[in-house]
Amino acid sequence: MSKENPFLLTPGPLTTSMATKQAMLNDWGSWDADFNRITAEVGDYLLRCANAVHTHVFIPMQGSGTFSVEAALGTLIAPKQKTLVLCNGAYGQRMATILKTMGRPYVVLDKGDFEAPQVDEVHELLLADPEISAVAMVHCETSSGILNEIDDIASLCRALGKLFILDSMSAFGAIDIDVINTPFTALISSANKCFEGVPGFGFVLAHKQHLQHCKGNSPSLSLDLYEQYQYMGKTGQWRFTPPTHSVVAFHKALEQHREEGGVAGRFERYLSNRIRLVQGMRALGFKTLLEDRWLSPIITTFLSPDDERFDFQQFYQLVKQQGFIIYPGKLTQCESFRIGNIGQLYSEQIDAVLVAVQNACSQMGVVLVKTEEGVNQ
Amino acid sequence: MSKENPFLLTPGPLTTSMATKQAMLNDWGSWDADFNRITAEVGDYLLRCANAVHTHVFIPMQGSGTFSVEAALGTLIAPKQKTLVLCNGAYGQRMATILKTMGRPYVVLDKGDFEAPQVDEVHELLLADPEISAVAMVHCETSSGILNEIDDIASLCRALGKLFILDSMSAFGAIDIDVINTPFTALISSANKCFEGVPGFGFVLAHKQHLQHCKGNSPSLSLDLYEQYQYMGKTGQWRFTPPTHSVVAFHKALEQHREEGGVAGRFERYLSNRIRLVQGMRALGFKTLLEDRWLSPIITTFLSPDDERFDFQQFYQLVKQQGFIIYPGKLTQCESFRIGNIGQLYSEQIDAVLVAVQNACSQMGVVLVKTEEGVNQ
Repeated sequence: MSKENPFLLTPGPLTTSMATKQAMLNDWGSWDADFNRITAEVGDYLLRCANAVHTHVFIPMQGSGTFSVEAALGTLIAPKQKTLVLCNGAYGQRMATILKTMGRPYVVLDKGDFEAPQVDEVHELLLADPEISAVAMVHCETSSGILNEIDDIASLCRALGKLFILDSMSAFGAIDIDVINTPFTALISSANKCFEGVPGFGFVLAHKQHLQHCKGNSPSLSLDLYEQYQYMGKTGQWRFTPPTHSVVAFHKALEQHREEGGVAGRFERYLSNRIRLVQGMRALGFKTLLEDRWLSPIITTFLSPDDERFDFQQFYQLVKQQGFIIYPGKLTQCESFRIGNIGQLYSEQIDAVLVAVQNACSQMGVVLVKTEEGVNQ
Repeated sequence: MSKENPFLLTPGPLTTSMATKQAMLNDWGSWDADFNRITAEVGDYLLRCANAVHTHVFIPMQGSGTFSVEAALGTLIAPKQKTLVLCNGAYGQRMATILKTMGRPYVVLDKGDFEAPQVDEVHELLLADPEISAVAMVHCETSSGILNEIDDIASLCRALGKLFILDSMSAFGAIDIDVINTPFTALISSANKCFEGVPGFGFVLAHKQHLQHCKGNSPSLSLDLYEQYQYMGKTGQWRFTPPTHSVVAFHKALEQHREEGGVAGRFERYLSNRIRLVQGMRALGFKTLLEDRWLSPIITTFLSPDDERFDFQQFYQLVKQQGFIIYPGKLTQCESFRIGNIGQLYSEQIDAVLVAVQNACSQMGVVLVKTEEGVNQ
């Protein structure tokens, strides 16, 4: 990689392997049996990853991850059903905005920038308002980098007969999720996250029996998961033109996912990247926003140094000139930036980005002060 | 090309150049200035193609072309405005279905499988129902391959103060369209059609002044053209993750479009392909559905031979084995199939597909009977 072709240390789009990109060097007929087979194999693999082969179905959806979230909320929750949205960052809030735009009833539990929603408070809210029949939440909230605890909330929903819609965009593929431990109605994710494909589509693993009752729920023709699934069942094809090259690249990326040891193998590499990165950044004098127990292996938020010579735009450019693209912060309460660990990144790149960060700080004349904790307190 | 990597003689996804596909061998940060520049250049070029630089703006939209059509209908027409949809095939009907799903008021002028809507009958309908404030139609209806006449209808709409929404999915880039002659409120098209990019997104050229009044019209967060444009204006970025590789491939494809002589150059090649194809097919004994004046240079519908040994599935496989993917028919009234002329196809490929068709017929034992007209009468 180089200045012209930097590594992406971001929550996606991310750096993919050359083999994945080279899979895009052919053109495919989107109605042809050869392409249909690829779509089917992708779905089988993803369902197996969540141990959901017997209970759920795979439904891809064109567009960014948000399109899949909107499709899931619009199709799987009936128009009059009320949803409780658990928010601790931008992606939880986006689910609430989607429901608002569709004119659907919802309430929000807003935990601010990075506090994790707790099962007890969810329980309380569900008991207090029996009209709530669905709970929606984000698995890894990349706004802060927090990995939310989902198992108890999912189990609570099952026990109370509520739908549980999980936006696992930035987690599925690297964080173990098994439908037995996390009984989800729907899990939503995207091609260009932990499975390391290129962007172009997302997908939903939807509970098969529940889906059967969802005809006519969607207020959108394009984003109707029920109809997408029906059409695919009949023809093997996507309902409207799929991003063929992205799909074939994803199929190739899944081969590499399997070769790396599946979800467990990928988790190990990302975790090792994050430990190396956080240790290195703390050694330089940076602090993480979150305590270690909440850090995801996906992306980490670092607080901007308490030095007026630190300017994020300049920092970004200086790091980019050394071959790495990092990510701005998204906190409302303090200055921060984010560095991701996902994609084709290994210890070599993590070490190099630490050098790049140190160089950038020197060039700006920023003095970093080390403290013992290395955490925002 | 080969059996493993056949030419696509279809309305898209189509066969793209190797240079276009190779542009996908890098990964891009979707918020980075380098990528934003690419998006901006794409928009400038497309607006110039329609001579709409001063009046319209470019708004890309993730997903298939249908997503862009839904975004345009949902954003640019207010919820209570009534739309007249002109139908002569599946894509006109799809616009009606989109409006129906959104719960928007509309009426349909349905001309059946392939009759072209006439300006006089549109005029009559608009006078009879003053509540109609928008007209939507398809430019090249690939269901039959017909190229609809749009200039008079567009001018009528302007004269009467009606919005004119044109689905130019399969025409823009190869059929000359100038906003002076065809005063459109919005023109919708897609990356994987006559500009010869790969699928992943569509786009809308929307009238700038009209767009300013469209805030809050969209019932969808993802498919809101107004918000997409606002966000892009502020940041240079797409509002949600773009299909970065498809966008960069499209940028490369536009270079080749310009080098070929722009819209005029591309038109010439496609027209020459179609003339060669239709002459060759008629010489073999096939008939076109449409008379020559209605044939588009995009795709042509041929009637299935009147021989019971002709089976489309077998024909498709036999032609595919020779390296060409053709397209099934979409007519309700008679058996047919379609052969497209768009994408990286030249006289060499057209000649080869004619041989493939002849071989396939021989292998099936189909006897072709030549008539003088070569047209469905």
